[in-house]
Amino acid sequence: MPTQPGPRHNARGQARREEIVRAAIEVIAERGYRGASLSAVAEKVGLTQQGLLHYFPSKEDLLIGVLLLRERWDTGGRDIVSEPMSMAATVGVVDANAHREAIVRTFSALLGESVTEDYPAADYFRRRYRRVREAIAATLRTEWGDRLPTGLTPEEAAPLVVAIMDGLQFQWLHEPENLDMPAAFRAFVHLLDPDFAVPDPAAPESESGA
Amino acid sequence: MPTQPGPRHNARGQARREEIVRAAIEVIAERGYRGASLSAVAEKVGLTQQGLLHYFPSKEDLLIGVLLLRERWDTGGRDIVSEPMSMAATVGVVDANAHREAIVRTFSALLGESVTEDYPAADYFRRRYRRVREAIAATLRTEWGDRLPTGLTPEEAAPLVVAIMDGLQFQWLHEPENLDMPAAFRAFVHLLDPDFAVPDPAAPESESGA
Repeated sequence: MPTQPGPRHNARGQARREEIVRAAIEVIAERGYRGASLSAVAEKVGLTQQGLLHYFPSKEDLLIGVLLLRERWDTGGRDIVSEPMSMAATVGVVDANAHREAIVRTFSALLGESVTEDYPAADYFRRRYRRVREAIAATLRTEWGDRLPTGLTPEEAAPLVVAIMDGLQFQWLHEPENLDMPAAFRAFVHLLDPDFAVPDPAAPESESGA
Repeated sequence: MPTQPGPRHNARGQARREEIVRAAIEVIAERGYRGASLSAVAEKVGLTQQGLLHYFPSKEDLLIGVLLLRERWDTGGRDIVSEPMSMAATVGVVDANAHREAIVRTFSALLGESVTEDYPAADYFRRRYRRVREAIAATLRTEWGDRLPTGLTPEEAAPLVVAIMDGLQFQWLHEPENLDMPAAFRAFVHLLDPDFAVPDPAAPESESGA
């Protein structure tokens, strides 16, 4: 017996979900990760907390919605395995992250929680890591072919790129004044290839510039 | 008016604290990070939960006790800034971590929690990062002097070493079968210096061998 399509599955429901996720990002920016309550988000979009639970059954589900939206911003919605980003664009993502502390904090806090037992969203991170490593390997292959200048294959180097991005975020969240995250990521790209021309963050963006 | 030294401050109290921390490690190994309860640890050492709180006021305090003991194992108790470890010994720490999943999980879960607002142990991680970056810079300087082969200074490379170690642990905890953590760390050392002779994990240890 088929059930009625719920609000999560039709176009209007999808738009509503995105509106809720955007409200959640505002609430996290204002009150931080831990202070962000479902009721504050519900109030912002004119729903009761019960109404919100219809779209996101738990706070974790909503926070993962935040992370999924962030991914779409980073990639412009394209499949980054079949259409890899350039290394310059990857550097740009790290630059952008240094200006969106609330989202980075949400990601890092959820990542930590994801390794505790029976965490319901562990699967999200497992699948995400597979996909991100694959996408980064595709980026490295686009840029350098089947061997990087140091002799590593894209598949050997990809987990290192991902680890650097995740690991630097923790150091940066603890002491932003003591860790220049974009500079540190550029230093890592220099390890991958000393001759790689890393874009300068101070220069105007070529895509949006004249 | 001086107070009596409490159980946390005398030698017997210190020995008791260490006994409790060792019991906590056993409980975490058996039941996982989240399943590790103060009452289970108290029972193992013949204390009431109230008695345990005398030594460790909260579960977080006890878990940080676990991390501090792990650090002492890694370093043999020496000051690793004034007496830096070799790069080979650092590689050995990563090899050892791949055989103590429970402690790595505790560290990673607490690291995630440490970036949430008002987390009481955030200070532990802030101080730890400063000290670990300083220690790794000292290790890099011992091995390569004031410039690594790629031109980075020890201070520029140190945050990258720390980020790789922390970041690889998250990928490894999620899918140990898809990420060979010791091999990935060796690939990173190869980026630092393609000519560096990284010790082989299968070879007998020279320090303990014949």
